[in-house]
Amino acid sequence: MLNSQMVDFGRRSSTIRNFFEYGKKRRQIVGEENVFDFSLGNPSVPTPSAVTEALIDVLSHRSPIEIHGYTPSAGDIEAREAIAADISRRIGRKFCSRNIYLTCGAAASLASCIKAFLLDSSSEIIAIAPFFPEYISFVTGLGGVIKIVPPKVDDFQIDLPALEKLITSKTQAVIINSPNNPSGAVYTRKTLCGLSEILMRKSSQYRHAIYLLSDEPYRELVYDGLEVPFVPDIYPNTIICYSYSKSLSLPGERIGYMFVPDTVEDFDGVCWATSGAARVMGYVCAPALIQKAVALCASVPTDLESYDRNRRLLYGELTSMGYDCCHPDGAFYLFVKAPNGLSSVEFSELAKNEDLLLVPGDDFGCPGFLRISYCVSFEMIKRSIPTFRHLIEISGCPD
Amino acid sequence: MLNSQMVDFGRRSSTIRNFFEYGKKRRQIVGEENVFDFSLGNPSVPTPSAVTEALIDVLSHRSPIEIHGYTPSAGDIEAREAIAADISRRIGRKFCSRNIYLTCGAAASLASCIKAFLLDSSSEIIAIAPFFPEYISFVTGLGGVIKIVPPKVDDFQIDLPALEKLITSKTQAVIINSPNNPSGAVYTRKTLCGLSEILMRKSSQYRHAIYLLSDEPYRELVYDGLEVPFVPDIYPNTIICYSYSKSLSLPGERIGYMFVPDTVEDFDGVCWATSGAARVMGYVCAPALIQKAVALCASVPTDLESYDRNRRLLYGELTSMGYDCCHPDGAFYLFVKAPNGLSSVEFSELAKNEDLLLVPGDDFGCPGFLRISYCVSFEMIKRSIPTFRHLIEISGCPD
Repeated sequence: MLNSQMVDFGRRSSTIRNFFEYGKKRRQIVGEENVFDFSLGNPSVPTPSAVTEALIDVLSHRSPIEIHGYTPSAGDIEAREAIAADISRRIGRKFCSRNIYLTCGAAASLASCIKAFLLDSSSEIIAIAPFFPEYISFVTGLGGVIKIVPPKVDDFQIDLPALEKLITSKTQAVIINSPNNPSGAVYTRKTLCGLSEILMRKSSQYRHAIYLLSDEPYRELVYDGLEVPFVPDIYPNTIICYSYSKSLSLPGERIGYMFVPDTVEDFDGVCWATSGAARVMGYVCAPALIQKAVALCASVPTDLESYDRNRRLLYGELTSMGYDCCHPDGAFYLFVKAPNGLSSVEFSELAKNEDLLLVPGDDFGCPGFLRISYCVSFEMIKRSIPTFRHLIEISGCPD
Repeated sequence: MLNSQMVDFGRRSSTIRNFFEYGKKRRQIVGEENVFDFSLGNPSVPTPSAVTEALIDVLSHRSPIEIHGYTPSAGDIEAREAIAADISRRIGRKFCSRNIYLTCGAAASLASCIKAFLLDSSSEIIAIAPFFPEYISFVTGLGGVIKIVPPKVDDFQIDLPALEKLITSKTQAVIINSPNNPSGAVYTRKTLCGLSEILMRKSSQYRHAIYLLSDEPYRELVYDGLEVPFVPDIYPNTIICYSYSKSLSLPGERIGYMFVPDTVEDFDGVCWATSGAARVMGYVCAPALIQKAVALCASVPTDLESYDRNRRLLYGELTSMGYDCCHPDGAFYLFVKAPNGLSSVEFSELAKNEDLLLVPGDDFGCPGFLRISYCVSFEMIKRSIPTFRHLIEISGCPD
């Protein structure tokens, strides 16, 4: 006898991965040049050479026992201090190693926080559409209830009145993701202040802290000098879940951290509960070698140039053809409306027939839209333009 | 409001880690040479140079995007095939990549299996004392009930009649760990055949498979050419949870795998449920770079020589002084009885006063005994001998 919910989570592999597998097969059949795969969020910008050099340097000059041994559960002190120093430099205020807990990527941070915040099977966690689909797996798979704020499709900020209505005495936390996957929107200071005001009022009404989980793997991926507000300054009960997957192009290495500010209600309790949750799920420590590289490279800047070039080309071409698309300010996604009244699944199927792979927004809680991952080669985007044009033309014609 | 069970798991950090932290402090006060720290299972044998060379070679010659990108959830096919080929070579029968699912170490494998097997809060999992203390965290923290078979202190095999009595209709799995931490015992073929007979009979009685989780991080650490039976050949419903932490001295890198044999009941279901469980707990894939090293080094032999030298010295000296200790056949632990009628905590305190650190067996489910981790330098063991002698002498004297 197996846990049937876990069987389902294993069997229903993610739509995104299915597209990716399909793309791999098609490339073998029709050739690398003829498949336009915009399905996966795997960075196309290589890991900065500073990271490779740091890894080789550590491997060449330190003792293997020191490199590969267990680290403390929260991570090597050098890495935690380097990360705290980098955040301090950027925010202009002093943070310490105690604010940083290294994890196997943002997914591990989120799962640990969610497990720490769920009290029983009636506990609720709120996510805001469009959202990263795994939030549903984490919350329901770890035994809680997820509630979804419908998308605000004009600008993909947060529908605050709708959010407020979903908060109950059972609400333990709200998850936000800005810069957003899949919409590319960056929540403005105004949006975040509005959110904070509601959460403070509701925390006070229900007499318990409602924690804000700020999932920020795309924090560094923002264009045109736009502001990404430091969320704990706006809402004190915020925990940041960060990953180096996108900023340093290390998605497979599973390295990230939880940032717990001193302002959080019951700081010690939050640290204990999240580390206790990580412990029972079998997380012993974040991978040790890559921790050493992070200690040396915490301040290495993200290479934005090629993503920005892709973004400009794709956004310019698609909107000039008549596609309807919110302005992409961050991350490496465009979120385009299915044209000519088609559903997102219909348009995705039409595109698939032309070997152009776009993930329907349905799994992100936003039907009617499609996600275009532009973390791909500039040349592939250029080659794909005529197909995008062809698709908007044929989708407008009656059968 | 935080989950109080998770707070507790975070607050009550492990006894072993507390000893280790204490040892670090004492070394600063009384000097490196004067602390005899036998508390932690951190390998003292360096990672084989083949692993370091493989890591540097991969970093120097492959593209960073290929090295550090997401791998499939089950791991890079090259690593899975290399591991399957290595097991095939050793067992003399063909296994395939489908039998291997890479994980962030044996702890992640165990947590994923346990989460997959727990149906509700009444589901039971059986562990056999002495056991790795984290089994309790995994089972109870993931929402199940753990039942403990008392230790068989004459030889630290399994008390099979006691095990049989603990099996109920709610029993979902049994966890074994051989070579054993902390006893150093290796379960004999006879013990495992007896276990298999009981599990088959009880599975049949209760009409559902009782899975056997074989936690084998010490599989390669066995001395005098002793046999470590391949458990799935004895009991078909076995899943092996393996780690390279000890065999390749990579404990901080969090790399291991689940081995699911084709003989397991509902093979597809088991694979789905365990991968679904890993997914909801935020495991995306095992760390990517180290997967590449494992693909190249799956057959690199474990360096046993220095552990064996430590083992012979320590076992010979302690038993000649009058310490009572089961013969250590595997892993890198001696499990010694507290002498002169003292409790394990009393003797541990007495030893601590002499800066000799031994973990009491209580947390391993075996009061009255103490774990001595001999994965330390030969020189430290030599220096510690007079202190061991002093301790058995003073503990025998009336106050």
